[in-house]
Amino acid sequence: MRRNLDGLLFPRSVAVVGATPIPGKIGNAVMQNVASFPGPVYAVNPKYSEVLGRPCYPSVAALPEPVDLAVIVIPAEGVLPVLRECGEKGIKNAVVISAGFKEVGKEGAQRERELVRIANDYELNLLGPNVLGLISTRVGLNATFAPRTALPGQIAFMSQSGAFCTSVLDWAWKEKLGFSHFVSLGNKAVLNECDFLAAFAEDPETRVIVAYLEGIQDGPRFMAIAREVSREKPIVVLKAGRAEAGARAVSSHTGTMAGSDHAFDAAFRQCGVIRARTVEELFDFAYILSRQPLPKGRRIGIVTNAGGAGVMAADAAEWEGLSVARLREETLQALAQKVPEEAAIYNPVDVVGHATLEQYQAALELVLADPGVDLGVALSAPHPILRFADLARVVSQAQRTAGKPVAVSFMAGELGEEAEAILREAGIPSFFDPARAVRALAVLAKYAEVRTRPKEPPPVFPVERERVRVLFAEARRRGRVRLGLEAMDVFSAYGIPVARGGLAKTAEEAGRIAKELGTSVALKIVSPELTHKTEVGGVRLHVRPEEADRVAWELLRSLRNRFPEVQIDGVYVQEMLPPGREVILGMVRDPTFGPLLMFGLGGIYVEVLRDVAFAVAPLSRPEAEELLELVRGKKLLTGVRGQPPVARAALVDLILRVSQLVAENPDILELDLNPVLCYPDRVVAVDLRLTVSEEDL
Amino acid sequence: MRRNLDGLLFPRSVAVVGATPIPGKIGNAVMQNVASFPGPVYAVNPKYSEVLGRPCYPSVAALPEPVDLAVIVIPAEGVLPVLRECGEKGIKNAVVISAGFKEVGKEGAQRERELVRIANDYELNLLGPNVLGLISTRVGLNATFAPRTALPGQIAFMSQSGAFCTSVLDWAWKEKLGFSHFVSLGNKAVLNECDFLAAFAEDPETRVIVAYLEGIQDGPRFMAIAREVSREKPIVVLKAGRAEAGARAVSSHTGTMAGSDHAFDAAFRQCGVIRARTVEELFDFAYILSRQPLPKGRRIGIVTNAGGAGVMAADAAEWEGLSVARLREETLQALAQKVPEEAAIYNPVDVVGHATLEQYQAALELVLADPGVDLGVALSAPHPILRFADLARVVSQAQRTAGKPVAVSFMAGELGEEAEAILREAGIPSFFDPARAVRALAVLAKYAEVRTRPKEPPPVFPVERERVRVLFAEARRRGRVRLGLEAMDVFSAYGIPVARGGLAKTAEEAGRIAKELGTSVALKIVSPELTHKTEVGGVRLHVRPEEADRVAWELLRSLRNRFPEVQIDGVYVQEMLPPGREVILGMVRDPTFGPLLMFGLGGIYVEVLRDVAFAVAPLSRPEAEELLELVRGKKLLTGVRGQPPVARAALVDLILRVSQLVAENPDILELDLNPVLCYPDRVVAVDLRLTVSEEDL
Repeated sequence: MRRNLDGLLFPRSVAVVGATPIPGKIGNAVMQNVASFPGPVYAVNPKYSEVLGRPCYPSVAALPEPVDLAVIVIPAEGVLPVLRECGEKGIKNAVVISAGFKEVGKEGAQRERELVRIANDYELNLLGPNVLGLISTRVGLNATFAPRTALPGQIAFMSQSGAFCTSVLDWAWKEKLGFSHFVSLGNKAVLNECDFLAAFAEDPETRVIVAYLEGIQDGPRFMAIAREVSREKPIVVLKAGRAEAGARAVSSHTGTMAGSDHAFDAAFRQCGVIRARTVEELFDFAYILSRQPLPKGRRIGIVTNAGGAGVMAADAAEWEGLSVARLREETLQALAQKVPEEAAIYNPVDVVGHATLEQYQAALELVLADPGVDLGVALSAPHPILRFADLARVVSQAQRTAGKPVAVSFMAGELGEEAEAILREAGIPSFFDPARAVRALAVLAKYAEVRTRPKEPPPVFPVERERVRVLFAEARRRGRVRLGLEAMDVFSAYGIPVARGGLAKTAEEAGRIAKELGTSVALKIVSPELTHKTEVGGVRLHVRPEEADRVAWELLRSLRNRFPEVQIDGVYVQEMLPPGREVILGMVRDPTFGPLLMFGLGGIYVEVLRDVAFAVAPLSRPEAEELLELVRGKKLLTGVRGQPPVARAALVDLILRVSQLVAENPDILELDLNPVLCYPDRVVAVDLRLTVSEEDL
Repeated sequence: MRRNLDGLLFPRSVAVVGATPIPGKIGNAVMQNVASFPGPVYAVNPKYSEVLGRPCYPSVAALPEPVDLAVIVIPAEGVLPVLRECGEKGIKNAVVISAGFKEVGKEGAQRERELVRIANDYELNLLGPNVLGLISTRVGLNATFAPRTALPGQIAFMSQSGAFCTSVLDWAWKEKLGFSHFVSLGNKAVLNECDFLAAFAEDPETRVIVAYLEGIQDGPRFMAIAREVSREKPIVVLKAGRAEAGARAVSSHTGTMAGSDHAFDAAFRQCGVIRARTVEELFDFAYILSRQPLPKGRRIGIVTNAGGAGVMAADAAEWEGLSVARLREETLQALAQKVPEEAAIYNPVDVVGHATLEQYQAALELVLADPGVDLGVALSAPHPILRFADLARVVSQAQRTAGKPVAVSFMAGELGEEAEAILREAGIPSFFDPARAVRALAVLAKYAEVRTRPKEPPPVFPVERERVRVLFAEARRRGRVRLGLEAMDVFSAYGIPVARGGLAKTAEEAGRIAKELGTSVALKIVSPELTHKTEVGGVRLHVRPEEADRVAWELLRSLRNRFPEVQIDGVYVQEMLPPGREVILGMVRDPTFGPLLMFGLGGIYVEVLRDVAFAVAPLSRPEAEELLELVRGKKLLTGVRGQPPVARAALVDLILRVSQLVAENPDILELDLNPVLCYPDRVVAVDLRLTVSEEDL
């Protein structure tokens, strides 16, 4: 459901419930801030008839009109009746600044549930509770109790932490960074990040959406909205809480490898959200995305009058994934004529310290005009003959003319201050550190790629869902939730190629299956408790069909002798396959995003090198293909040392079918296909572990 | 040779050759800056009898005394005669600011060679040419033409880029960062980074040595000095120019993998130099190292009044390699009594937004006093009841009392400015971004580990050097510089275990050798041109001794038929070894540091995953052991999936012997031992490539 938040974000009239003339009180701070709102402002407080020069009413019911927005700043106990009053009055939007809900324990949580019920009954757009408030510079509203307001700008910001909001407001004031909207999300009882993501997307004055989040309430909805929005506007998120929350009880490989942070990384990547690691990155990225155009590619042109700065920028380009552009012949010739003789005309272009303003300008213009340059960085150290302010004007002019993104590093302190103001006016980011300028530019390139990604829904293969349901029902009936080879049929039902074989309850049956297979076989013990088959000696390989019954008999006897207490269901008789390249495909349920697939090269690559990649299912075909590219050892799939490549299309198909399986069957809690053997002409799943929920979901 | 630079860094008298009263000239700017020097200052210029109120002499010869330091600011053409005059006068230290030497081409390079000769003749400590100059706040000297001087401080700084010097001076002025010495290295014709490293080490007022370098002139000398110095004082280096200089002609695996930047990384690691990646890191690291004590370990205590900031700091701790300290029971109990009820008392300790100054102080003191906490970070968002300035005083006090390192992130803008000044006074670094504060703290922990590393010289094994010399001489005589299995003896001579075997020129000889070995053998074609033996079908495995002559005959015939133009020397007959874990050990000559060893797990780990580690030879035993720890797949050596560990001591021994081999024999230009097979009880080199120089070195 997409909510209409116009009344919340662009209200025409506002009431402050709990407004008070007493300084030091939050109700006073909010009223002071709201006072500058250009539309009608009403105070609500039975104790006063006027607050800060605005008319004050004894109750919401008494208000002369159903205002667009009610801001509630009263003790928690009083909030619920006021909300009901709002609903009755026909008010549709409320900000509950009051604390004393979920965050304070059981009683508060009960109060919060009640608040949600009221909000739903009256279809209230409710922000909070427990928030700093919200600012909309678009309509001149500051409905917070913060000592600072936000400057106007094109960045919409939301934060799960109210304290972080006050930090950002104070810091942004000093840095002169502006916002279109500024929202403290608080407890997210009703409205959450998804609602604001959708709303900010529709605001034409918002160019970038920025969020500080500690969690996401509805992962799939977030992904669906972000996937759409990120094609139109960049979304930059600082997701705090990367550190692992400690061990969980898991039985699959995938379970031991997949932390919740992998899910966030995967989900953000899949839906085009740019992840910032630190606060510095968050606002560096937001600023450049809001003010500079997008590049066509990743090729950077570097112009400097100080060699060292150019080298630092080139280094940074390399580790940020940009390439140092190769200038075309015409550019080099023109440069040679315009810059001092000692200049280095190959990118990085070093016009040297005694270059004049005109020479620097000519070099920058030529570099930015080169069709092989997608983005540019302009660098300078202090030099007696150059004024940074003049250089700033030249850079701004050159950026406008070229229409390509530019960032600046004037490596100076006070000498650069006037220049900074000029650059800020022009929307060109400027940093002391050349590496930081390059890092910001790299994000533009990254986002440009997000916009042009193929748009393709996950494929839906015709499968036998009913067969899977029956198999799981049967397993549950037998009290089995951890399944192994005996669950191979689940995969066959989804058209996933598996090694031929069958479960034999007796040695004789094993012999019969082996003869039917007509090839040498592997015998693998099947037991819900002995999941590490090889380690307990429960596997026999390269067994000839005619010996299968004897070997199976010995295997069963040996295991039953050694593990008398353990339930042994039989022996799985499987065709022996030739060696192939092993991969593993697994899945766990992430609490936020649901089915999280893990792909890796088999064995040691997973266990020792942890060379794995994650994606949230269901996957589109491009996403499945991307998964293969994300592992470091990806070359093993294309063939090294003279080996032919593996059947890539078949592997992608397998991943997509498993993706559909786990997306359609929420009762699969975890699974590993391990190994899947990959050959030049086909892929085959050879072994598996699967955990199904105790109840049908 | 360790030079005495006292006269350069702590001069008692100074002459400025080329001083002029004409504003805008560099000779004037230098004289203006030098004028504030408290000791005698003389101008030298035949045109004047006085410059800026100081006596001016027509020549150096005419000076009334042999000054400690001559600063030369005249056109390049005049520099050499002046230097000779300095020498004749008995002046021992000179700064040649003048440009027009190596950096301007052939004629300049000739002039620079002449300058070096003069400096050597007169034993002149010569800084430059082509420098900004130098500043010693220790004696109040600014012998540069920069518009800013340096504030006094405890950081000694040197930079290969003069432009970067002016940048840093202007920026440091604004940031109020001080320096003990500030040196522009320029062309490094005589004095280079090594000399200043040694000199700064001896200055008791210098606590941290910081360098911006684009190259190092004498790698081995740098390493020798840095190894000693880094135990006493931290050395932080920004080495620019990481990007690869393009392909080189190489024949070994190691050659294709080892970029020059790997050598810098390895050398810095080995000699305890802390590498900064960016300018921001360079000074963040320098500042905290100069002002905060060193921690005993890596356990961080986090105190915050804003939950989000604490989470961000904990995230940063994880990725910077710090661990979030586990507070002891006594601390938790005491915390519970001192902080608000809603506070989170487990580290990160969140005293929550309405905590008083006293509560914050109590929490910080308790956390820092916990014996399980090695370093601390204090975080705060703006809160109405807390003044940052008060908090800054509390943090400073707590840091002093605890004697443990602390950094701060008060997430604010203007509201935090007064606090910043207080923290600066106390030497506590303060950043808006919590992650940046944690990153700075992590460097303290890293450096503390540098100081306590075992000090051990590389071992020297008794070896047969002469045999190696003879083998190489023979190869050269036959016109062979690229050697393969036939060079196995080189390794035997150094006590390196190799697979048994021998070179057979004929099939009969192959049969004889195989019978002597008395085991099944591998036959490998030996040819200087067919270095990819397996790929050309030049290898036969598992050959029984009695069949060796026949198989060798077929092998030789087949290869000679297929490659009629190619010189084939014979067949190497080698014992067949059982499968073992493969590793590779290689070496290339790095232009800066010399013999650079590469270690990796064999085959795919090297080729596809590029999972390799580097070290400059010769290695000490701890360095060889460290090498094994630096590869991602290191667990493969200790045993996974039930495998026993490989013979680690034998592997370390092999690395040390190869290290000695390449250190003692500079005519080995490149080598690969690939594979070395590792077993639980021994390691054996099985194949090799080696390139020897055309001339004996």
